[in-house]
Amino acid sequence: MLVYIAGSGAMGCRFGYQLSKTNHRVILLDNWEDHIAAISENGLQVTGDVEDCVRLPIMKPTEATEIADLIILLPKADQLPKMLQDIRGIIGENTKVLSLLNGLGHATTMRRYLAQENIMVGVTIWLAGLKGPGQAFLQGTGSLSVQNMVGDGDAVAPIIEMFNEAGLNASYDDNVIEAIWRKACVNGVMNPTCAVLDCTIGELFGTEAGLNLVQHIYDEFIAVAQSEAEGIDKQAIWVYIMETSKKASSHYPSMHQDLIQHKRRTEIDYLNGAVVFKGKRAGIPTPYCQMITDMIHAKEAMLGLR
Amino acid sequence: MLVYIAGSGAMGCRFGYQLSKTNHRVILLDNWEDHIAAISENGLQVTGDVEDCVRLPIMKPTEATEIADLIILLPKADQLPKMLQDIRGIIGENTKVLSLLNGLGHATTMRRYLAQENIMVGVTIWLAGLKGPGQAFLQGTGSLSVQNMVGDGDAVAPIIEMFNEAGLNASYDDNVIEAIWRKACVNGVMNPTCAVLDCTIGELFGTEAGLNLVQHIYDEFIAVAQSEAEGIDKQAIWVYIMETSKKASSHYPSMHQDLIQHKRRTEIDYLNGAVVFKGKRAGIPTPYCQMITDMIHAKEAMLGLR
Repeated sequence: MLVYIAGSGAMGCRFGYQLSKTNHRVILLDNWEDHIAAISENGLQVTGDVEDCVRLPIMKPTEATEIADLIILLPKADQLPKMLQDIRGIIGENTKVLSLLNGLGHATTMRRYLAQENIMVGVTIWLAGLKGPGQAFLQGTGSLSVQNMVGDGDAVAPIIEMFNEAGLNASYDDNVIEAIWRKACVNGVMNPTCAVLDCTIGELFGTEAGLNLVQHIYDEFIAVAQSEAEGIDKQAIWVYIMETSKKASSHYPSMHQDLIQHKRRTEIDYLNGAVVFKGKRAGIPTPYCQMITDMIHAKEAMLGLR
Repeated sequence: MLVYIAGSGAMGCRFGYQLSKTNHRVILLDNWEDHIAAISENGLQVTGDVEDCVRLPIMKPTEATEIADLIILLPKADQLPKMLQDIRGIIGENTKVLSLLNGLGHATTMRRYLAQENIMVGVTIWLAGLKGPGQAFLQGTGSLSVQNMVGDGDAVAPIIEMFNEAGLNASYDDNVIEAIWRKACVNGVMNPTCAVLDCTIGELFGTEAGLNLVQHIYDEFIAVAQSEAEGIDKQAIWVYIMETSKKASSHYPSMHQDLIQHKRRTEIDYLNGAVVFKGKRAGIPTPYCQMITDMIHAKEAMLGLR
């Protein structure tokens, strides 16, 4: 199989590295010049659980020409439309395209560029970091769940098999959508609230008013989720959120790191912003998500990020 | 007339000082020990537009015994119920009680302690400051509008006359409630948003997302205001808000000063919190006010203020 990684940041490098150990061909795509130069000249350096260096072809998305069997989408969320445009030349009639992006709304974007039957969505709990251009830092273990948007798992059995040859602990799951929503719920209640209130997850959940905020936002996520996916269990996801909040009590969530610590534009449009958008389409009011999205947007604008 | 000032902070001192220049008797009430000691020993020192010192009786609210003709309420908003309890001994059958507090919900509190026909409400645009115990700083000019909760202005004409003898530019206005709502709208859209987003009024109004926040909160204020007062002109108050935002563009509003700069508990319960409360009673949804109130409460709780 010919596999492209469209967006070869930290997680893209993990997938590229692990797939390079199989008999399949892997090509990394990215737009970061220094990253391309480093990997072209010295290979992909891996540290963490293993020390390794692999030679992997890497190029800009627009430079790829050979029709793919599988494309794994891992760009930054706001770069997805551009990435899908840039890789049109390698998408054939039977090319499967798997999104592993966090957040909501990506399948809608994909449908604008791809045939419904070639779209796959997945969630992974593998972790990955980048220490610099061409330098992946890979620790721990994880797993990967994927799903076809149309049909069952049979059509993508060879893809699952390839992932497992690469040690990625993959399985077919006919409710990945539910897992995506679960992850989005956790991030949607904690991320923007901790960013706006400049607090840790424990501080947010430790106040009655903070819990009110979480509960209101959560109710909207669930109402919208239930309008578009099967098997959304409100009670179970709430329990999962409360467990996560205890485990991650002393942490500032990623959106706090982006906005407050690094003054970077956030992914709010793919969390609470997407719930507002989907809510409008479904006739479900989402004032709490609207308000927290406006607050993050206002903060981004004040920092010159928007 | 015997006039008590119930709550003799900056504005209470202004009223006490100006009324002391008439032939009426004025007694200051307050609970701040240093303030009572300073005024008892050295009189009330006035600087600013004039330099003066006047001897004025001052005592704790529970120590007052002589039945009042007029009581002017100027405690901190969250001290109003306690103040009304403490001064029960000086409220007679014909004692008029005038609230000059900022914010919403005070008339409801007053009705629990006072006969409806003795309640007056007012708004003033006089300014006043305190430089220390017993030291009032008074600058500029202003005006005062008052209204009876029941009946017309005739019953309180002697009170208006007394205020004008004191140079307070008083007039009877049979829609003070509208003026109170207008002031509350301005504060309700700017104060908690600038406090949560840690920004100036100009920064808030200068972003599209910030304006969205303002607009959503404003819509709820107006819906609730129109449910309980006559003559609320949505268009006119919006124009007034936009003008105020331009004039005060470089300022941090008072709630920002309280919460962010001085780590003091805010008056959110008498602004957006009161709109939530009144909205519930009237069956009007107020999710934006609910959310910004929860955010301010959460922030207060994290700072140990609640």
